[in-house]
Amino acid sequence: MATHYYTASSLDGFIATSEHSLDWLLTQDIDLGGPMAYPEFIARIGALAMGASTFEWIMRHEDGRWDYEQPTWVFAHRELTAPEKGDVRFAKGDVRSIHAEMTAAADGKDLWVVGGGDLAGQFADAGLLDEIWVQYAPVTLGSGAPLLPRRMDLELIDVDRNRAFACARYRVLTAVKNGAHA
Amino acid sequence: MATHYYTASSLDGFIATSEHSLDWLLTQDIDLGGPMAYPEFIARIGALAMGASTFEWIMRHEDGRWDYEQPTWVFAHRELTAPEKGDVRFAKGDVRSIHAEMTAAADGKDLWVVGGGDLAGQFADAGLLDEIWVQYAPVTLGSGAPLLPRRMDLELIDVDRNRAFACARYRVLTAVKNGAHA
Repeated sequence: MATHYYTASSLDGFIATSEHSLDWLLTQDIDLGGPMAYPEFIARIGALAMGASTFEWIMRHEDGRWDYEQPTWVFAHRELTAPEKGDVRFAKGDVRSIHAEMTAAADGKDLWVVGGGDLAGQFADAGLLDEIWVQYAPVTLGSGAPLLPRRMDLELIDVDRNRAFACARYRVLTAVKNGAHA
Repeated sequence: MATHYYTASSLDGFIATSEHSLDWLLTQDIDLGGPMAYPEFIARIGALAMGASTFEWIMRHEDGRWDYEQPTWVFAHRELTAPEKGDVRFAKGDVRSIHAEMTAAADGKDLWVVGGGDLAGQFADAGLLDEIWVQYAPVTLGSGAPLLPRRMDLELIDVDRNRAFACARYRVLTAVKNGAHA
């Protein structure tokens, strides 16, 4: 079982504009059956974690529809309303205890930290992030929500192209894993 | 003749740390005969442009040695000292007139904007940047000197792996070229 941060990004390391827009991303061409695409990735996932902004973006843009079948933990300090359908649980505080809950719920499948960057960083800080997958859209944004606001060393696993996207997959090297430096 | 911004970057879009360090980059494994590597790139270049910080980094780390054979324009508002050897010219102000000088000096070869990101942005603002090549080192920095502080649309030309690096090459789409929007 591994915990993945799988995300799209601009070339210059932003996962959304400062106004939480993904318009620059959603217009790009991708082959859903191609390398590192979403359908193959989500098939291996048993539980999700996401931050409040990511959750609110989905609620705002999907008309309250919730497409994830897996249990999802939303890390939020503010009050949020769960969608009518779907298994959404609101969480606060340390990622360690939530990661244990997610692991139990995932039933042997992998975990996905959807975003944002700081939440992925919190999992990494706790030694609980194993892989980072980035699909670079062919744009620069100049500012916005940071991809991963941490200093981390990684190992490149794979590089590929999927139409408009340059895709890279990494193993996290400098995490504290189970209390000991990896 | 094309003008290229060819640079290394962290995954999260920084070309140097906030303290101007490249230690995170220089320790990485690369095949100089491999895809998108420096020797093949520099062979096509007839003139260079760089900002003051990039110039000062080279002066500080190469013991004042200057390895570039091509004429180089250094954009600086502060007083800088040219190296003993090499063709280094200090420039101020608009990139358009300097780009014309560089083009004349390059004798049919391409131009390289070495860095930093804002200088590359100034060339792009003027419609004078054709391609962006990024070699992503397997690290996140979390902060530092930005890759390209602009909102730009690009077209992915090529993706490849060179040992530790994920390499991507782009065509600039949203530049004003010769006074008309491309």
